[in-house]
Amino acid sequence: MVTFYGSELPSRLMLGTAQYPSPKVLAEAFRRSGAGIATVSVRREAAGGEGGAFWDLVRELGVRLLPNTAGCHTAREAVTTARMARELFGTDWIKLEVIGHADTLQPDPWGLVEAARILSDDGFKVFPYTTEDLVLAERLIEAGCEVLMPWGAPIGTGLGLANRYGLRSLRAQFPQVPMVVDAGLGRPSQAAEAMEMGFDAVLLNTAVAKADDPAAMAEGFARAVEAGRLGYEAGAMEPRDMAAPSTPLIGKAFLA
Amino acid sequence: MVTFYGSELPSRLMLGTAQYPSPKVLAEAFRRSGAGIATVSVRREAAGGEGGAFWDLVRELGVRLLPNTAGCHTAREAVTTARMARELFGTDWIKLEVIGHADTLQPDPWGLVEAARILSDDGFKVFPYTTEDLVLAERLIEAGCEVLMPWGAPIGTGLGLANRYGLRSLRAQFPQVPMVVDAGLGRPSQAAEAMEMGFDAVLLNTAVAKADDPAAMAEGFARAVEAGRLGYEAGAMEPRDMAAPSTPLIGKAFLA
Amino acid sequence: MVTFYGSELPSRLMLGTAQYPSPKVLAEAFRRSGAGIATVSVRREAAGGEGGAFWDLVRELGVRLLPNTAGCHTAREAVTTARMARELFGTDWIKLEVIGHADTLQPDPWGLVEAARILSDDGFKVFPYTTEDLVLAERLIEAGCEVLMPWGAPIGTGLGLANRYGLRSLRAQFPQVPMVVDAGLGRPSQAAEAMEMGFDAVLLNTAVAKADDPAAMAEGFARAVEAGRLGYEAGAMEPRDMAAPSTPLIGKAFLA
Amino acid sequence: MVTFYGSELPSRLMLGTAQYPSPKVLAEAFRRSGAGIATVSVRREAAGGEGGAFWDLVRELGVRLLPNTAGCHTAREAVTTARMARELFGTDWIKLEVIGHADTLQPDPWGLVEAARILSDDGFKVFPYTTEDLVLAERLIEAGCEVLMPWGAPIGTGLGLANRYGLRSLRAQFPQVPMVVDAGLGRPSQAAEAMEMGFDAVLLNTAVAKADDPAAMAEGFARAVEAGRLGYEAGAMEPRDMAAPSTPLIGKAFLA
Repeated sequence: MVTFYGSELPSRLMLGTAQYPSPKVLAEAFRRSGAGIATVSVRREAAGGEGGAFWDLVRELGVRLLPNTAGCHTAREAVTTARMARELFGTDWIKLEVIGHADTLQPDPWGLVEAARILSDDGFKVFPYTTEDLVLAERLIEAGCEVLMPWGAPIGTGLGLANRYGLRSLRAQFPQVPMVVDAGLGRPSQAAEAMEMGFDAVLLNTAVAKADDPAAMAEGFARAVEAGRLGYEAGAMEPRDMAAPSTPLIGKAFLA
Repeated sequence: MVTFYGSELPSRLMLGTAQYPSPKVLAEAFRRSGAGIATVSVRREAAGGEGGAFWDLVRELGVRLLPNTAGCHTAREAVTTARMARELFGTDWIKLEVIGHADTLQPDPWGLVEAARILSDDGFKVFPYTTEDLVLAERLIEAGCEVLMPWGAPIGTGLGLANRYGLRSLRAQFPQVPMVVDAGLGRPSQAAEAMEMGFDAVLLNTAVAKADDPAAMAEGFARAVEAGRLGYEAGAMEPRDMAAPSTPLIGKAFLA
Repeated sequence: MVTFYGSELPSRLMLGTAQYPSPKVLAEAFRRSGAGIATVSVRREAAGGEGGAFWDLVRELGVRLLPNTAGCHTAREAVTTARMARELFGTDWIKLEVIGHADTLQPDPWGLVEAARILSDDGFKVFPYTTEDLVLAERLIEAGCEVLMPWGAPIGTGLGLANRYGLRSLRAQFPQVPMVVDAGLGRPSQAAEAMEMGFDAVLLNTAVAKADDPAAMAEGFARAVEAGRLGYEAGAMEPRDMAAPSTPLIGKAFLA
Repeated sequence: MVTFYGSELPSRLMLGTAQYPSPKVLAEAFRRSGAGIATVSVRREAAGGEGGAFWDLVRELGVRLLPNTAGCHTAREAVTTARMARELFGTDWIKLEVIGHADTLQPDPWGLVEAARILSDDGFKVFPYTTEDLVLAERLIEAGCEVLMPWGAPIGTGLGLANRYGLRSLRAQFPQVPMVVDAGLGRPSQAAEAMEMGFDAVLLNTAVAKADDPAAMAEGFARAVEAGRLGYEAGAMEPRDMAAPSTPLIGKAFLA
């Protein structure tokens, strides 16, 4: 099982709560996905948010909440928002987003490290939304982060794994740090591939919420995450450049 | 559910029976995969094959057998082998392989169409192992084939989908024909991707048998096939070249 | 230099003559490309064609003509058209196209081999437009073809090399046969890549004719073909999965 | 022509001077490439370097020198090295490398920006070796950099463009800043592709120096850079998912 900050989680799939066509569909998506963690926007909730019905819903789902600092563009904003989250949701877990570029929502390395340090020192368990940058990863770990959440591609694009080489490097350089591929996935096969690369979990929102049938897509991603993890653990064959017969002609392949 | 020649199948995963480290592992792989069809080499069995223990095993698995003509290099050999299969296994289903190139085991378009016609006329239900060639596909259908089995990559390579464009064209040009991606897959994510492209099933052998833990890998592929099918049916979001926020800041996304 | 049927060619770039915005642009594209061979549609010319001005133009360019059988859907049509070409253009060179699929213009393996055999027996030097199929390649060579022209992608798509694995196999399996990547290229880098893979030449039409500035694009492709050939001959470094410094710190890298 | 800090350059290809089998080969590589800029390691030269013969060579080549700070792991080291370079080579141009990760030689965003600011304030024309990170790019520009040198892949890998999406974003977000793809290229087609994406120049070292025939490879890359630039300027056709004939059958395509 995957462990974040000492807590064992029941599932390697995490789901966001934005953009669903209705609360009913959101609930159904969570049920079919088996996701054990739901991210939720602090700013949206603080601004009035989804209201009581949303909270009743979330309570019924029985998932753990991971509030995020979506919409924050400076370390200071993010820190304030995280503290608000602790009040609002009664948890010291925080998915830290510090946006550095308006169009692509790319994380700001500087703001991210600064906020991660302040929040870790303040007792938060920080889940930073980051890029595949190795130096940034190192600084986040030094700042106290015990989990990293690198992007697959920019938020909401559904492009999949834009930089496989960079992600493989990141995974290889910090083998002991749990990592969640967060953002940019669009199809289940991409989630499976991330898991085959050795990532520990996947976080989705747009790909599920904007599918024609969000609940079925949620289940598809859940199966994909299991598939990729099994593929990782089961030790895949090495690809071979030359073809070879898979069915030997002269029998007795294994029987005495 | 997927239907081949009028028979509904319980699973979209098909497994080969060659190259496993032991019969016990083979049995365990089938159980964990839930595969409903097992391919088996006629020539290997006719040559003495795996013997009684193998057959006891297969009977216990309760799967449907799809004998293949692996190792045949001419239409004539393949036809003879198919007829032997009908005797030996009591089924008119035949996975038709006519090898045209020794190193890559690429199918021989000429031999394949010739054998498919003879066998179809003789009452066989032919499952031809083919390439992504559109004209070849058309000829196989004209010859009586109601299922096509295009390769992902050459047999035993584990390279995945070597020609995505060609496979997408094939799928698009013959929307009504059930198609199984057969050969060349190495990792679960590749099976999921084939299913997302609209293929109806996947056939594996080497990727499972040669994994470090074949039974776990078989389950991984089973989950991947489900994941990809759900992804196909649930209607994936369109990828977007520009990034967009997945968490709108001002709430009430769906509640009145 | 590259040699087709015993004739040395001055350039590894071949250009089609269709779809240019004007004859002046066509002429300029040929001049800047240095192409030594121009393909021309027999059917278009037989049907009245471009007329005298076009021929004056072609004469001035001083290139060798390679008539094609574009638009033929059967071996018979192609054979008739090739014979017409011999009359019309006074050459026994023929680029053989036998279309097998209306939408993608995929070659018809059966018609192609049949027509290649008839034409080769009749003294033609056949340049077959083919796929990456290895068995088809073998049959074309047996039928008398001394050059193969595999597609990169379907005609007019500009998609580049749709099946790199298949093209590399084709190149590797018939090392002694001159091969021209024909159709589907859209950008110079794709032509360079084809040449790096060991192909002997490239044939273009749409990518040049439909560029905003066809003459500049023709020169771009000419440079790309040279680049790729040099890259092939100069023996490229092996890619390395791990990074390594390119600038050693302690000097005297080569001086005594 | 491409302009860096107000200086027009004769070529869009830049070459490193490390790792060649001999000074003679280095000289030949420069001649055949037409490169107008040579990078040279300050630390290597300061440590005794290649000696007088090397300098005679460089003088003869008539290229402009761009000293680099290869081997520096902190802003401070890099600043010191840059100042040494100004003394040693009599130029205020400096290719700024601040290594942040030992294995991959990934740039250190923090050190890079810090050093860039100090050096720009001190009158240097800074050419920072950077990643595709958009926020880092913005900070480097704010720090005074008028050119950016993003990597294609880690130094010495020959992997090509590891993150096409990221590089396209970077190019699109800062259309007015000259950018050189620096590091990671292995074959000419990759350089052509970088130029087609709108990058202004390419810097190579390992791919040329470690080719079997470095001088021929240098010329190959030179042609590739021209090819890609022409392809960019000439406006490539849009790729089309569906195939279309490139040779219309009924003539008179453009003649009255």
